[in-house]
Amino acid sequence: MLKAHRRPAVSSHPIVSLKESVRLALAVALSFGLTMACASNALARPVTVDDLLTASSPADWRKPDPENTLYLELASGRVIIELAPQVAPLHVANIRTLARAHYYDGLAIVRVQDNYVVQWNDPNHSRPIPAGVEVVAPEFTAAAGAERRFEPLPDRDAYAAQTGFLDGFPAGRDPRTHTAWLAHCYGMVGVGRDDPAESNATEMYAVIGNAPRQLDRNVALVGRVLEGIELLSTLPRGTGEMGFYVAPQAPVPILSVRLAADLPASERIPIEVLRTDSAVFKSLVDQRRNRREGWYKFNPGHIDVCNVPLPVRSLLDR
Amino acid sequence: MLKAHRRPAVSSHPIVSLKESVRLALAVALSFGLTMACASNALARPVTVDDLLTASSPADWRKPDPENTLYLELASGRVIIELAPQVAPLHVANIRTLARAHYYDGLAIVRVQDNYVVQWNDPNHSRPIPAGVEVVAPEFTAAAGAERRFEPLPDRDAYAAQTGFLDGFPAGRDPRTHTAWLAHCYGMVGVGRDDPAESNATEMYAVIGNAPRQLDRNVALVGRVLEGIELLSTLPRGTGEMGFYVAPQAPVPILSVRLAADLPASERIPIEVLRTDSAVFKSLVDQRRNRREGWYKFNPGHIDVCNVPLPVRSLLDR
Repeated sequence: MLKAHRRPAVSSHPIVSLKESVRLALAVALSFGLTMACASNALARPVTVDDLLTASSPADWRKPDPENTLYLELASGRVIIELAPQVAPLHVANIRTLARAHYYDGLAIVRVQDNYVVQWNDPNHSRPIPAGVEVVAPEFTAAAGAERRFEPLPDRDAYAAQTGFLDGFPAGRDPRTHTAWLAHCYGMVGVGRDDPAESNATEMYAVIGNAPRQLDRNVALVGRVLEGIELLSTLPRGTGEMGFYVAPQAPVPILSVRLAADLPASERIPIEVLRTDSAVFKSLVDQRRNRREGWYKFNPGHIDVCNVPLPVRSLLDR
Repeated sequence: MLKAHRRPAVSSHPIVSLKESVRLALAVALSFGLTMACASNALARPVTVDDLLTASSPADWRKPDPENTLYLELASGRVIIELAPQVAPLHVANIRTLARAHYYDGLAIVRVQDNYVVQWNDPNHSRPIPAGVEVVAPEFTAAAGAERRFEPLPDRDAYAAQTGFLDGFPAGRDPRTHTAWLAHCYGMVGVGRDDPAESNATEMYAVIGNAPRQLDRNVALVGRVLEGIELLSTLPRGTGEMGFYVAPQAPVPILSVRLAADLPASERIPIEVLRTDSAVFKSLVDQRRNRREGWYKFNPGHIDVCNVPLPVRSLLDR
């Protein structure tokens, strides 16, 4: 009975948009009570994210560049990651080289820490590093020029002077130092590093818990999961310290990691991401900040950057 | 090689403290790089949470009241929930009555939405409500007097004028209205409701994603998961709208829900929670706010209330 007025605008592709219908269209609002009255709500109901996406135009969406799109293949399915080459060019260059040398194929997820991260690397530390991969500086903050692309939110934040979006990714900014950086929100992807701080991008992680924002400016974030985060977030938690898998637990094999650009067009997943510089996105943020649905009795009036949905849709069945 | 100086102070109980060693002792700090040099760090290293807990005294810990402790039994194991009767007395009274009438036994988890909540109820909406269970007012904010027990953090927050702790739970406060409320952090447990806002506590949920703080003051939180959250957070995501399970997915049966007080003492799990009013806890918050470990190159200097660890330890093998 909840479905009548809540058909998501996004497609019904079984991977993308059922998740999206969940995450976007309705999220919380009308959901906790199972017995709410749809009929009364259908009259003069407030605008929903669903409405906003339905009214969007093709120009409000962007197609991630196949050169920036990673397909991480697990036995359970495909995780699609969008890279942020303008923010972390050195790490992204390494990742492209590693993917093209098939370095990641056959590596494994070695750590799954509840409410924190999933991490993958070479469990045997034995695989040769391909030619062209360099140990690079940490890229904790975005490469020069990023500040001009930063789209601020007006909301307070515990960790950053300012939060907002950078190239479509959640981000922080410090107006005093004129720096911007990607923020450790759920689904963000980064590159493990040693101390002293340097990395060659052979070890990566994804955030699967409450945003560990203390890591901002301490590790290089390089992108985010567009699709398939649930394949990572439901993995068994490691029982070793810090969630590392220890016997009898087995690491989870990574079958392959490919750039979408290196697959034939017919094997690429046609997905689109809502542009954060679109008017529709601004309306969406406002709708999430100010909850006018009847179910909400207290309007938060604020939003945490990590709670702003970043809509992704599949074009497979539009 | 990471283990030498990192033996957690908490016990090695296979459920509690491996998780705790993960969550508490080290969390992130030294972990992303697998090759860091322990030897150099052993010299004059900064105080860790592990050190703080090792130095704690028995008086720094409290034993949750068995009257406030729920054991939610799944086929995969036990989830332990501490209730907050001083905050939400009407809902907690209903929950005790429902548990004692065995109302929850045989109900099911019907919804698992990635990065959001796990929700359980009577999937058939057919079970009679036991005598003594009342539909009650929403208890969005804490019962009168709560403000005096509130322990503030100095840090900014996106949603609340003030955050801190109330009876050991993460909380928000508005000094203008003299109200306080529990905060929707990871692992917090609440009671689903209809619109208009009222509930009898027959439907419950737990947060398994980035803190959905927009729900604060919109749903009654009644406690938090002390142990076993990973049994909920790893459940398969529902493929229906908003993460509801739909065929061919099957709801996850709840075998039983019992108050610890109703079990023989020999069957209760002896756990303790670090007191939020202890000096050790204040040191722990400071340690998490100011990251002095060598691995951190940027000290956040702030903390989000939902990123403050709330240590739990098992006494089984101390």
